[in-house]
Amino acid sequence: MNRAIVLLSGGMDSLVTAGMARRNNDSVCFLHVNYGQRTESRELTSFHNLCNYYQPEQSLIINMDWLGQIGGSALTDTSIAVRVYDGKKDIPKTYVPFRNANLISAAVSWAEVISANHIYIGAVEEDSSGYPDCREIFYRHMRRTIQTGTQGKIPIELETPIIHLDKYQIVKLGVELQVPFEFSWSCYQNNEIACGTCDSCYLRLRAFEKAGVFDPIRYAPGMR
Amino acid sequence: MNRAIVLLSGGMDSLVTAGMARRNNDSVCFLHVNYGQRTESRELTSFHNLCNYYQPEQSLIINMDWLGQIGGSALTDTSIAVRVYDGKKDIPKTYVPFRNANLISAAVSWAEVISANHIYIGAVEEDSSGYPDCREIFYRHMRRTIQTGTQGKIPIELETPIIHLDKYQIVKLGVELQVPFEFSWSCYQNNEIACGTCDSCYLRLRAFEKAGVFDPIRYAPGMR
Repeated sequence: MNRAIVLLSGGMDSLVTAGMARRNNDSVCFLHVNYGQRTESRELTSFHNLCNYYQPEQSLIINMDWLGQIGGSALTDTSIAVRVYDGKKDIPKTYVPFRNANLISAAVSWAEVISANHIYIGAVEEDSSGYPDCREIFYRHMRRTIQTGTQGKIPIELETPIIHLDKYQIVKLGVELQVPFEFSWSCYQNNEIACGTCDSCYLRLRAFEKAGVFDPIRYAPGMR
Repeated sequence: MNRAIVLLSGGMDSLVTAGMARRNNDSVCFLHVNYGQRTESRELTSFHNLCNYYQPEQSLIINMDWLGQIGGSALTDTSIAVRVYDGKKDIPKTYVPFRNANLISAAVSWAEVISANHIYIGAVEEDSSGYPDCREIFYRHMRRTIQTGTQGKIPIELETPIIHLDKYQIVKLGVELQVPFEFSWSCYQNNEIACGTCDSCYLRLRAFEKAGVFDPIRYAPGMR
């Protein structure tokens, strides 16, 4: 019996990861984290739509408001502007300090309680925004941390199935897995339609274009 | 400039750890986490008293209510009894799944924002309750996880200064550091006075006795 917890923000990467988890496990449970991100309400809508679509065995929404409280990121602090994509390779201001370690730790706690043996996260290393907690090396050490810090009754595997894919490959994989892209949300702004100019929109639009697939979500006029 | 964040529950171990951090750093910041533990209000009183005493540069209280929501521990689920100390070496029901990884991850996020370069946690491996996330090997991997998952502008060191001490040595160290034991709280029950029978009270009482030091907190009649 393979039971997987999927960290599901509602973005394209976590959606495709959920599709993968669904294919490879007997049961999936979805975990969404609110952390005061500026897109909190929009992400939550996506999460609910995806729960309706996939009907996971369990779903859980948890609050990490303090990640927003402590600040330090344009994703949680509206006084810091979300930058327009400029191709720079430094760590962007949208980096939320050590966020993924917090998300994974929460998922591991839940996994120990519900006896899940897989945790899926849609981190992408190379073709992404350059966040340190999206790198393979971080996950390698996180795996050992999980092995040594839990009861070990059921070993918990941390799965990063799309970490080395290019974004366009993620789109193609999503098509293959028949994921409902129309319910996903990637934009860093909290509007009804995607802005088309932030890092995240830029990477998404370029990915669909390169994959030769139409992105079914709505964008601001002229931004597609 | 050494700025340390101390994970301070208000118990004896975290208090002595705070005393150590205070001695070895230019500045200390105290972090307390509420996670629906049955002793939440009692711990919070200790935390406030210790903030008054030490006057840290900053203090932060964060909520991880979901750790209580997901259950699986006698510390957060009042339907599971806190066991009377019985000397058994298995993982007790008071284990909160992967709790310390969650606490440390939160501390690391805060450290990145306020440029703290040390995080102190009062974990004790051998002379303790046998929780997996109190073992040296877990901290060894957690350190690598922190190194590889953060921006690295300021390297963040994870300090576990009392991990290999016996409990009576922790008491002696506390005396040497002149920590205010009277403000600390170790009991797993949420009463005005310590029960004297849970694992935590048993270990504390034995420690003070072996150290030849009077424990200034109040215990239930006949339990000292």
